Amino acid sequence: MRAAVLVRPHEVRLEERTVPKPAPDEVLVRVTAVGVCGSDVHFYREGRLGDWVLDEPLILGHESGGEIVAVGAAVAPERLGERVSIEPQHPSPSSAETLRGDYNLDPHMKFYAVPGTDGAFCEYVTIQSHFAHHVPDSVSDGAAALLEPLSVAIAAGRKAELRPGSRVLITGAGPVGLAIAQVARASGATDVLITDISAERRAAALRFGATTALDPVADATAVAASHVDAFIDASGAGAAVRAGLEALRPAGRAVLVGMGLAELPFPVTHIQNNELIVTGVFRYANTWPAAVAMAASGHVDLDAMITGTFPLSETEAALESTTTPGTIKSVVAPQR
Amino acid sequence: MRAAVLVRPHEVRLEERTVPKPAPDEVLVRVTAVGVCGSDVHFYREGRLGDWVLDEPLILGHESGGEIVAVGAAVAPERLGERVSIEPQHPSPSSAETLRGDYNLDPHMKFYAVPGTDGAFCEYVTIQSHFAHHVPDSVSDGAAALLEPLSVAIAAGRKAELRPGSRVLITGAGPVGLAIAQVARASGATDVLITDISAERRAAALRFGATTALDPVADATAVAASHVDAFIDASGAGAAVRAGLEALRPAGRAVLVGMGLAELPFPVTHIQNNELIVTGVFRYANTWPAAVAMAASGHVDLDAMITGTFPLSETEAALESTTTPGTIKSVVAPQR
Amino acid sequence: MRAAVLVRPHEVRLEERTVPKPAPDEVLVRVTAVGVCGSDVHFYREGRLGDWVLDEPLILGHESGGEIVAVGAAVAPERLGERVSIEPQHPSPSSAETLRGDYNLDPHMKFYAVPGTDGAFCEYVTIQSHFAHHVPDSVSDGAAALLEPLSVAIAAGRKAELRPGSRVLITGAGPVGLAIAQVARASGATDVLITDISAERRAAALRFGATTALDPVADATAVAASHVDAFIDASGAGAAVRAGLEALRPAGRAVLVGMGLAELPFPVTHIQNNELIVTGVFRYANTWPAAVAMAASGHVDLDAMITGTFPLSETEAALESTTTPGTIKSVVAPQR
Amino acid sequence: MRAAVLVRPHEVRLEERTVPKPAPDEVLVRVTAVGVCGSDVHFYREGRLGDWVLDEPLILGHESGGEIVAVGAAVAPERLGERVSIEPQHPSPSSAETLRGDYNLDPHMKFYAVPGTDGAFCEYVTIQSHFAHHVPDSVSDGAAALLEPLSVAIAAGRKAELRPGSRVLITGAGPVGLAIAQVARASGATDVLITDISAERRAAALRFGATTALDPVADATAVAASHVDAFIDASGAGAAVRAGLEALRPAGRAVLVGMGLAELPFPVTHIQNNELIVTGVFRYANTWPAAVAMAASGHVDLDAMITGTFPLSETEAALESTTTPGTIKSVVAPQR
Repeated sequence: MRAAVLVRPHEVRLEERTVPKPAPDEVLVRVTAVGVCGSDVHFYREGRLGDWVLDEPLILGHESGGEIVAVGAAVAPERLGERVSIEPQHPSPSSAETLRGDYNLDPHMKFYAVPGTDGAFCEYVTIQSHFAHHVPDSVSDGAAALLEPLSVAIAAGRKAELRPGSRVLITGAGPVGLAIAQVARASGATDVLITDISAERRAAALRFGATTALDPVADATAVAASHVDAFIDASGAGAAVRAGLEALRPAGRAVLVGMGLAELPFPVTHIQNNELIVTGVFRYANTWPAAVAMAASGHVDLDAMITGTFPLSETEAALESTTTPGTIKSVVAPQR
Repeated sequence: MRAAVLVRPHEVRLEERTVPKPAPDEVLVRVTAVGVCGSDVHFYREGRLGDWVLDEPLILGHESGGEIVAVGAAVAPERLGERVSIEPQHPSPSSAETLRGDYNLDPHMKFYAVPGTDGAFCEYVTIQSHFAHHVPDSVSDGAAALLEPLSVAIAAGRKAELRPGSRVLITGAGPVGLAIAQVARASGATDVLITDISAERRAAALRFGATTALDPVADATAVAASHVDAFIDASGAGAAVRAGLEALRPAGRAVLVGMGLAELPFPVTHIQNNELIVTGVFRYANTWPAAVAMAASGHVDLDAMITGTFPLSETEAALESTTTPGTIKSVVAPQR
Repeated sequence: MRAAVLVRPHEVRLEERTVPKPAPDEVLVRVTAVGVCGSDVHFYREGRLGDWVLDEPLILGHESGGEIVAVGAAVAPERLGERVSIEPQHPSPSSAETLRGDYNLDPHMKFYAVPGTDGAFCEYVTIQSHFAHHVPDSVSDGAAALLEPLSVAIAAGRKAELRPGSRVLITGAGPVGLAIAQVARASGATDVLITDISAERRAAALRFGATTALDPVADATAVAASHVDAFIDASGAGAAVRAGLEALRPAGRAVLVGMGLAELPFPVTHIQNNELIVTGVFRYANTWPAAVAMAASGHVDLDAMITGTFPLSETEAALESTTTPGTIKSVVAPQR
Repeated sequence: MRAAVLVRPHEVRLEERTVPKPAPDEVLVRVTAVGVCGSDVHFYREGRLGDWVLDEPLILGHESGGEIVAVGAAVAPERLGERVSIEPQHPSPSSAETLRGDYNLDPHMKFYAVPGTDGAFCEYVTIQSHFAHHVPDSVSDGAAALLEPLSVAIAAGRKAELRPGSRVLITGAGPVGLAIAQVARASGATDVLITDISAERRAAALRFGATTALDPVADATAVAASHVDAFIDASGAGAAVRAGLEALRPAGRAVLVGMGLAELPFPVTHIQNNELIVTGVFRYANTWPAAVAMAASGHVDLDAMITGTFPLSETEAALESTTTPGTIKSVVAPQR
């Protein structure tokens, strides 16, 4: 099969690889769409992401969907031909974290496109059968891939305890921020404030569920006065995190999704005096059934987030496209 | 002022009463709309509701809104002229329940239209100022009144832990069931099943957020197989409660809203083997801010639930109207 | 190996069986102690328990501990010789319930001593390695076995949300009730009321953490007035469940542990008006680490609950002993 | 009456003041014991605490108990003569925070010994009757006062979700840390690690519930490896907070109680990758019933924490005593 391999920073090479063979509890998926994520771009540009360092060639891509074309010995053959969205993780079944239901926090996790485990910018991938989630025909190939960032947004919304009538501030209107805005609106949040320094992104946010889009600098006073129930950072910027914490009502919840600096100065006394709850999101667990249902029912619109589609041979262009004005989400279609 | 007084079962008399005087922390509200609730109808028809017995004339009506026309000594005069929705309760501020945030469970509660405390089928009422909730002009007088049943639905949705992707079964498509269906949809529930023996009510349910409407008898098998995350009873019928408990997935949540028999046979082993969580809703606490925001933002449509409006002099007709085909919610407008 | 096999109700026969061979992720345990549980006695006396029916010979016993004497191919050989307590379940790793952390509710569960899966009244058993929980030498063989009923009590205490200052009512002072009383005390509950019709059991309860022991009939008024935060039924008796529900404060929690009739009349209006939360316990998940630590630290005393020890050849006598006055917990020691 | 008034930093003057008169919902308490808190010492030494600045003479002291000697018009006269512990807060009954049960977060709060509201280093104080909590005779005068710091510890334990089998790290073995250690032990925590730079304080911690006492510098590796479920900071030191966050298991909870710098650098990526939950404690709400019960039942020992008792005339010496070696908690007894 063909695979787009990151051989070193800024160099993706199309290579021939052997089609992987599914283990007994796995399926083989012919990949139809793979979204480009900011973490892919970090590896592509810098050869690293946080503590992970690219030390050998790696296939990127972890937002993917496709069709089941082979099944392992323990998987029902009826699944052949099924269209699926891939939950790209493989946790240990016996860690304390997995047994508690936090399988995303399992320390023995193997995850697509993290050094040591190849991802989905290629023609075929394997995944445990229960992480190949069936999607109905009303969900497009591209949307099946984007259930992955939607899952991040669902995980963030759960930790933020969004519910009907919630007031929420989202900082950052990139693809993750927009997915969170859609989830917030679908959760019944009635005030969905979003901040971004880009006017273009603010305008996009208003199309994806935000009720108010603000400039973090020019509108700083309005942000500070917003007295929201929940704050979700999708920017990774220290100033945004600080502004969000100050915008929270007493006992409000802050959820840090954006990745940026390893360390930030935190307003501890403010957190204490208001008993704010601060936490973060590391991927997701138990989100896919909700994600499929939300996409299929029209609670969210993922197709509208796709602003460009690239063949596998142009994976590098797809990775470069994230800074092109107007880009929200680029998708690689390996079968084209 | 004029007041529609229930003097005995089946007899409502228009009487002259003194306009009440607000206590220091209260406001006086000129009532513009009052919804008819099933509990009003119980008092009207049977002279009782559960353990409460009508022993002297009583003004019914607890779903109400209006305009502030006078304020108590401790209330800001700026509130004069404000349009408000009334949260019709007066708990003790010092009970353990109130201090915990469960003020609806305060044993010293005074509540509109419960024997001992008059309700709102009249021209003026008093309420503590913080329970006279401001509504914007985008919320109609009728909708302001219906924030009360919406609050019941919000309380039920919270206890059912509805969230994006939830599958929920609602039994009973009367006004409460329809309000719950709207809240479920607004919460992101993707499968909102509703059952009712009336084809007319099932059709209405599909207009108010239900994704599937079923006949509890003819479709009993489909209901049992629905494997829902949450079940909310809005019927008060024993058969519906049993069917709902059997439709729940393991660790699913059942919320009993409908009032009916004091006692029902419960499938205890089934509850245990599946660790179902069963609870009930008694009115609401801390729901009005969400209710106002949901009505103002269009997450719910309360005006569409109003099928008839009556002047105060026809309060008895309004109470009788609940069994008229096509009726969802009747509203009395005391100022007409 | 020798095994005590229930061939039909009231007949346990000592048979020779092949020592089981551990699967790759399993260990082989030489069994040193097995507690007798009420569910074993149900199968022994009636040939059934709820919907489970004894249709072929079955080895009973699911409260067990021992020593690892062989390991599967995927298990670290360092575990050989380790003293362990056995969590006697084998859930599917891929069900929705397991992935959520509720592996006890997995519909594909295989559990010791349930028709189809043999239990531990024998010399050797296999179990997945992560369910063979290490115990330090300060925990005796008998106590290692009794971590199983302790786990039921821990699961009940979690669902009851016991915490420092809790007032809790426990109905039934059999072995499960006593374990719950110990857990309640260890959780910081300051009022641990227990009811039992047996004066002997009430006296025992006061030795195991109860602060007050009451006769459910003679002291019915005191029970009803106890206004507890939580109620845990360990009797399975309808009258006890009703009394417990009436003893709860508003928003109190009821946890049904005892098994009895499949169906009970429930005071629905009372549950609704007080927003009681009613649930049940089906075994346990994620309790063993806490159970081991509680036994090792002295927060509970399991050895004091063992009132008789029997060799494997007297398993039938152990099963019969549960009705002997003075018996709390009988233990079979297969290696004696 | 006599009152010990802080007139400026480092100067406490005994003055004559008028005995306050209880409002209708208040009681007048003859004060028998008042604990010295670190926040009192901050005002005494620095004339400020965080954003609060001493701008006029102030009576300090908010850990207090005594005897009801007069009641307001709306309070039952039967309460005269009752021994009580004082919950020193006066929230607004109508704020969103109070209505939700978070009355400690009410922005209109009046609290003892905060500039604007006098405290309890005097002979008589008033308090709303429901915040004058009855204590049985088994609770000493000093212990009645110390229910206040115990309440802080209970609030911290709740936010840390301590329960049987919990592993918890407490940083700081001052009086708050020791109270938290007692609560942790009473909650069933089986591993209660505490760190303090003082060997004397570490030794004290082992007498008050800690299972292990460590030096934060010498034992830094052991602390980092402790993999605890919960971390509670009672030191206010940045290094302790960082060490605690790193000691947490995935999804562990950090509760910041100690007051120190307004701002600290936070390991954001670490919080995200492990989905740690970080929050703070601001006083307490709904803790006193638990605190009374825990002291009365012997789950905690508050008398053992009192290392010195001073007459009102020596309040300044009491405030100075907190740095005296061997001091845990100093108490002023205004009636001596």
